[in-house]
Amino acid sequence: MVSQQVSLRAHVVLEALPYIRKFYGKTIVIKYGGAAQIDLNLAKEFARDVVLLKYVGMNPVIVHGGGPEITRFMEKMGKKSEFVNGVRVTDAETVEMAEMVLSGKISKSIVSMINHAGGRAVSLSGKDGNLILAKRLRGGRKDMGFVGQITGINPAIIESLDKSGFIPVISSIAAGEEAESLNINADEAASAIAVALKAIKLIYLTDVDGIQDKDGELLARLSLSDTKALIRKKVIVGGMLPKAKCCMEAVANGVMSAHVIDGRIMHSVLLELFTDTGIGTMIKPGITPHAQV
Amino acid sequence: MVSQQVSLRAHVVLEALPYIRKFYGKTIVIKYGGAAQIDLNLAKEFARDVVLLKYVGMNPVIVHGGGPEITRFMEKMGKKSEFVNGVRVTDAETVEMAEMVLSGKISKSIVSMINHAGGRAVSLSGKDGNLILAKRLRGGRKDMGFVGQITGINPAIIESLDKSGFIPVISSIAAGEEAESLNINADEAASAIAVALKAIKLIYLTDVDGIQDKDGELLARLSLSDTKALIRKKVIVGGMLPKAKCCMEAVANGVMSAHVIDGRIMHSVLLELFTDTGIGTMIKPGITPHAQV
Amino acid sequence: MVSQQVSLRAHVVLEALPYIRKFYGKTIVIKYGGAAQIDLNLAKEFARDVVLLKYVGMNPVIVHGGGPEITRFMEKMGKKSEFVNGVRVTDAETVEMAEMVLSGKISKSIVSMINHAGGRAVSLSGKDGNLILAKRLRGGRKDMGFVGQITGINPAIIESLDKSGFIPVISSIAAGEEAESLNINADEAASAIAVALKAIKLIYLTDVDGIQDKDGELLARLSLSDTKALIRKKVIVGGMLPKAKCCMEAVANGVMSAHVIDGRIMHSVLLELFTDTGIGTMIKPGITPHAQV
Amino acid sequence: MVSQQVSLRAHVVLEALPYIRKFYGKTIVIKYGGAAQIDLNLAKEFARDVVLLKYVGMNPVIVHGGGPEITRFMEKMGKKSEFVNGVRVTDAETVEMAEMVLSGKISKSIVSMINHAGGRAVSLSGKDGNLILAKRLRGGRKDMGFVGQITGINPAIIESLDKSGFIPVISSIAAGEEAESLNINADEAASAIAVALKAIKLIYLTDVDGIQDKDGELLARLSLSDTKALIRKKVIVGGMLPKAKCCMEAVANGVMSAHVIDGRIMHSVLLELFTDTGIGTMIKPGITPHAQV
Amino acid sequence: MVSQQVSLRAHVVLEALPYIRKFYGKTIVIKYGGAAQIDLNLAKEFARDVVLLKYVGMNPVIVHGGGPEITRFMEKMGKKSEFVNGVRVTDAETVEMAEMVLSGKISKSIVSMINHAGGRAVSLSGKDGNLILAKRLRGGRKDMGFVGQITGINPAIIESLDKSGFIPVISSIAAGEEAESLNINADEAASAIAVALKAIKLIYLTDVDGIQDKDGELLARLSLSDTKALIRKKVIVGGMLPKAKCCMEAVANGVMSAHVIDGRIMHSVLLELFTDTGIGTMIKPGITPHAQV
Amino acid sequence: MVSQQVSLRAHVVLEALPYIRKFYGKTIVIKYGGAAQIDLNLAKEFARDVVLLKYVGMNPVIVHGGGPEITRFMEKMGKKSEFVNGVRVTDAETVEMAEMVLSGKISKSIVSMINHAGGRAVSLSGKDGNLILAKRLRGGRKDMGFVGQITGINPAIIESLDKSGFIPVISSIAAGEEAESLNINADEAASAIAVALKAIKLIYLTDVDGIQDKDGELLARLSLSDTKALIRKKVIVGGMLPKAKCCMEAVANGVMSAHVIDGRIMHSVLLELFTDTGIGTMIKPGITPHAQV
Repeated sequence: MVSQQVSLRAHVVLEALPYIRKFYGKTIVIKYGGAAQIDLNLAKEFARDVVLLKYVGMNPVIVHGGGPEITRFMEKMGKKSEFVNGVRVTDAETVEMAEMVLSGKISKSIVSMINHAGGRAVSLSGKDGNLILAKRLRGGRKDMGFVGQITGINPAIIESLDKSGFIPVISSIAAGEEAESLNINADEAASAIAVALKAIKLIYLTDVDGIQDKDGELLARLSLSDTKALIRKKVIVGGMLPKAKCCMEAVANGVMSAHVIDGRIMHSVLLELFTDTGIGTMIKPGITPHAQV
Repeated sequence: MVSQQVSLRAHVVLEALPYIRKFYGKTIVIKYGGAAQIDLNLAKEFARDVVLLKYVGMNPVIVHGGGPEITRFMEKMGKKSEFVNGVRVTDAETVEMAEMVLSGKISKSIVSMINHAGGRAVSLSGKDGNLILAKRLRGGRKDMGFVGQITGINPAIIESLDKSGFIPVISSIAAGEEAESLNINADEAASAIAVALKAIKLIYLTDVDGIQDKDGELLARLSLSDTKALIRKKVIVGGMLPKAKCCMEAVANGVMSAHVIDGRIMHSVLLELFTDTGIGTMIKPGITPHAQV
Repeated sequence: MVSQQVSLRAHVVLEALPYIRKFYGKTIVIKYGGAAQIDLNLAKEFARDVVLLKYVGMNPVIVHGGGPEITRFMEKMGKKSEFVNGVRVTDAETVEMAEMVLSGKISKSIVSMINHAGGRAVSLSGKDGNLILAKRLRGGRKDMGFVGQITGINPAIIESLDKSGFIPVISSIAAGEEAESLNINADEAASAIAVALKAIKLIYLTDVDGIQDKDGELLARLSLSDTKALIRKKVIVGGMLPKAKCCMEAVANGVMSAHVIDGRIMHSVLLELFTDTGIGTMIKPGITPHAQV
Repeated sequence: MVSQQVSLRAHVVLEALPYIRKFYGKTIVIKYGGAAQIDLNLAKEFARDVVLLKYVGMNPVIVHGGGPEITRFMEKMGKKSEFVNGVRVTDAETVEMAEMVLSGKISKSIVSMINHAGGRAVSLSGKDGNLILAKRLRGGRKDMGFVGQITGINPAIIESLDKSGFIPVISSIAAGEEAESLNINADEAASAIAVALKAIKLIYLTDVDGIQDKDGELLARLSLSDTKALIRKKVIVGGMLPKAKCCMEAVANGVMSAHVIDGRIMHSVLLELFTDTGIGTMIKPGITPHAQV
Repeated sequence: MVSQQVSLRAHVVLEALPYIRKFYGKTIVIKYGGAAQIDLNLAKEFARDVVLLKYVGMNPVIVHGGGPEITRFMEKMGKKSEFVNGVRVTDAETVEMAEMVLSGKISKSIVSMINHAGGRAVSLSGKDGNLILAKRLRGGRKDMGFVGQITGINPAIIESLDKSGFIPVISSIAAGEEAESLNINADEAASAIAVALKAIKLIYLTDVDGIQDKDGELLARLSLSDTKALIRKKVIVGGMLPKAKCCMEAVANGVMSAHVIDGRIMHSVLLELFTDTGIGTMIKPGITPHAQV
Repeated sequence: MVSQQVSLRAHVVLEALPYIRKFYGKTIVIKYGGAAQIDLNLAKEFARDVVLLKYVGMNPVIVHGGGPEITRFMEKMGKKSEFVNGVRVTDAETVEMAEMVLSGKISKSIVSMINHAGGRAVSLSGKDGNLILAKRLRGGRKDMGFVGQITGINPAIIESLDKSGFIPVISSIAAGEEAESLNINADEAASAIAVALKAIKLIYLTDVDGIQDKDGELLARLSLSDTKALIRKKVIVGGMLPKAKCCMEAVANGVMSAHVIDGRIMHSVLLELFTDTGIGTMIKPGITPHAQV
């Protein structure tokens, strides 16, 4: 006699079928960060989630930053971090430290966790295979130093890894015009990569439920025009504002949907992909006649 | 806030990961029959199970018979069925009726159900692409007519379908030496096909728990030598005897394991593939020093 | 010394060369039926003809119906056939019987004959790989039941078989919107398949010389506009009318020529393909300034 | 009504089917020479035969010499030909003349005829792609000059042409160790190429019926041991001796059969390939217990 | 201690890198002729240059004529050459001689030299694989005989050889409409082949520095419009005129640049390809506002 | 007129041809280190050398360590380095620092330089794609911490990059059994990777001329047995001993030759590859009867 619990299991696995079919062979870009990256348990489960996606036929691509860890590391090295409008002022020493933390520590530890969960991950920075090209931000009042603005994506290295069954893990360092390292915004990198790869989905793992209205209510579904209106009306502000803009940028350029979800929930990526309603906020193309706001 | 139930779902899906990894790209031959075929609900869920296997990277191959339905059809046509040692005496008219029922009705309805569940199935008889070659059984006291003994498998047609993403559904009719239709035993066909395809698993869906000992206790794991001993000691008898022999034949010729499971349980195939203990009886190669019997 | 007869043989074989060159790698859809299907000798030779076409580099695709045999079978089962405007009223039981006869008997016996002649045929119904999609005919005064109107062709399964060297044999059953079996017209199926496969030729094997004028003279070559005029002037009537329409449909949608030929002649398909004048009636695209009628 | 003559034609074409099947995808090396090369009508029909073979799926490879034409050309140039044991004494000027005649005239005119018959031929000498490597014959009493003994075959160029649908036409000039041109025996070249290409058949077109016994009776089938005996008993002598040795060499090294046939008969190659008995003499491997001699 | 000379060597090799990168995978058509062909030392070094190009990833294609050698050969055969406007009057005997010299002697000796230098060359005339199609020049006052005007290029044979790593060496004989040999201008053949192959460069090896102005000064860079003006102003005259026209034809049809260089200089092709300024005259597309003339 | 200097250049480029031919399509593993890595000019030229190798058809694979820089970095972080028999005692913090320096700084800066020179490099650690598997060294008197001994190489990721035209740059960090980072010896990693990739050459860039005898004379060519003897006789000692052992290990397992060369010489890799004598010491397989020592 088979126990009821075991039988339930088969039933649940089967419920994933329509979603597996829907995303088969498609690319999903996940901007990884926040609690899901810091909390060891969440991180381990995230790695398993990513391996599952790969095995059921999707091409997950992980993009990550690591601001807080860079700050901590700089402190250890006796160097003070300075920010202008949320962007780190990045001298030569700073970009070197950032690269070491991002590419030498965080990326590699994500690779370790995915490999330990049974996948085969490969870490890349934007310099590898000239994946992310950028030019230095100039013209502001303050010289921001080695901070880059993305000017192009060469997806060949990702396509090559995908075809051979590897999972790319990408840190937010770009190659400047003189092949120098430039610090770039990881959210923007994820958006640009999703566009270049013609991804079906771009998912931001954050430490909030999603995008909320003024009363703190979750806005589950937004059109491009909704989102624009929300920004104009200053409903979307603060840390959520650049993420919302990255979502819009991606969706306006061919990504089928962009998502801001709560990485503090265990398996949040699976919940987004494998349930009808998904979780968090989804931004889709098009104009909603009766906008939610 | 994500409900606990939804979160559980992601957790369960993830538990399938090690099994998905294990069977990725492997061929699973399933002999379909009994309640799982007759009960419409079980049949529909079986079709969904098969589609799931295909999507998560396995190559399921379905083999079926249809004795009871042939008998019913013959009755309708006013023709009596005659059996010798459980084998149907098969004159020219009978084999034509059998082929019509198996290839023209049962196979096609399995295809319909799989396609409706989102897969792309293709029905084959052993005549298509000369998949199953047989010669007429001769030499008994009674001329059994158009009853065949399998002499060879040409797996090219299955391999071609697999490569293009189709799911083969095979009825137990073979091509005789003069290209005539021969009725063959579906259990034997499944075993021979599993061997020819170098399948990792051969699964028999039946209407019992599995192979049982004299006290009716399920024998969950048997080695080849165990099974031989059980047959010699007449523990395995009746309808289970030929199935046990087919399992032995497959395992002795390279199939990694053969299974007799209870098709009356919903999703029995998933339970067998996606749990550690599996269900029913598993026959594996090797000699067990302290046989269970 | 080589006999004159043998030498003649080589000479004749060589005369086929220009035609072999012309049709090399091209798809030829043949609607098989009538005497060529019923007469055992004609049927055997037809099978050899098809194998020859495959070996000299063409891709023959066989489509068949089987109305008379369905009627006979229904009679045997004690069921009366009812027709409205030549279309069989098809209740659930009838479509099941039709499918058994078409897919379980006729298709398989064509496969047997082709395989016996040295080819490797595979039988398909429109349900296999969702090859032929249809919806139920509705809106007439009488509910025709499970009769379908073709809505789409998925040629993937045929292309996959072609590439692997198999010869597809297709019976006129389609998959309805709920994956149910629908009876469809075989002539229409052949035409739709020829269009989907971008066939160079569509050939109807019939029991007449071809399309004739009012005096019973064969019309050897017709343009689309000729054919239209002949239909308007009621020269083409009766059983030839739907065939003529299927030819027009195919030629109007890219098939290079459609043919109505006499299947009662031994090797009629070879004669059509391997002689300059061909046999029977050929319908080609374009407008004939001085129409023959 | 189809005329009886036309109907016969289809019948004859069909009779070629078993042979087409048998040689499908196989390589046939034909040593071309004698009347079949000199007589314009025979030559044109030979070209058509070769194109037919290509279209029905074989890979014909043509090897030719051209001794008489070289002699004529040398005479025209006021140069006398000198032979030792049937081998042309070949000084620098002679080998240059031989190459011009073989590669610049004969090969190209065969290519022209094949292309005119609808094929796509490419002429090669043994120097192209280092197809035939040879070393100079030394050690005899007389310095034979630029006469080569085959030391190796590089079949890459032929395989590349075959794959792209071209028909190679090869003249009997080899590349010496210093890349100099060497005159080689065309019969030996054909044999060595047949072995290197794993050809199924090697056919010598000659001006006799085949190999004959002492009474001038044709020996239709010979085993390797038969042939050896016939040579020992001096039944095979004169011009036939080297050809017989080349046949033996090929058959002893994996070619399925070697043939000496009468090129004076129109379509002799087709007669050999497309009839059961073939024509001329066939040498096959194995020992015949009751040798014919 | 490494000697300075050796170290210099590495340095120089490295300087070729930017050029290797630039021409990687690109096709370079070289019209070979003049001193580079006649002088044995220059010829040997040319062969090594060609092999180098192949190894560093380019696809060199050699086209050659051989007028002077044909004239010499005809004299030897006691046949007088006659020219009208620089074009050889070519009767049947003449074209046969031309083909023998071009395809049977010159082409093969180039192949020998390239193979000896470590490459794998294959000689082709325009008849092989119907590479160069032409029709007979007619309508002039004088019947020029077997002289052809190019009507089409079938690059399939070259592409097939390129893919397999062979270097094509092409003689200026074309296939006429009846597959007869036609004598064509080698400069025109090179230009037409460069266009058909979408070559990046077309290089003419000549016995002059390049195209010169009225004072005998080399014109190093010319636009299409420059060249047109120079022709109109009769600066480009005599033997340079047809070459200039061939360059213009190529560049106007997609070849990136055409070059007239001095083949008397050792390694002139390498100097053209591997230095910034190149040598000789380069003709590029576009209009030069301030033309040099 | 072409200057003599330019002409010399072409001549020198051409002299590289035999070496280009010899190493075409072959894998060359280069252990990068010492002055060639530290001196910016040498490093830039090394990057250009590597790009050249890639363009002329070789597959260069770069392996590097970075001990001195790790030590410097640890000092900066206020952590003292401790060595036992030349191996760094590596606690958790140390391996993290080592990984950051190796993978996050050194690897990326090599990638930058190669990309700036026109190549497309990708940095990998042994964790990426599980390239280098290791287990912790245990059993010594002192717990060395996160120091690994190589247990396996998975070359799939390198092969995938090679096929797509990327140049792999590998840092000496391995994946432990729990996917943890382990510090490994870069010389050993290079040797193991050369074996796994079936490399034709393994080259160690060092700060000495090569392996020397007791009088400080360079030993230019050594057999395996020579090297063994030199080690036994304590001629090879100190820092050269482990390198010599790595060379022996590689050559004994199929690498064609291993080299210890002087990275202080500009373009030392090109000098080794592109000259007959090479530079430094070459160790080849086989036994030298009269060993040099």
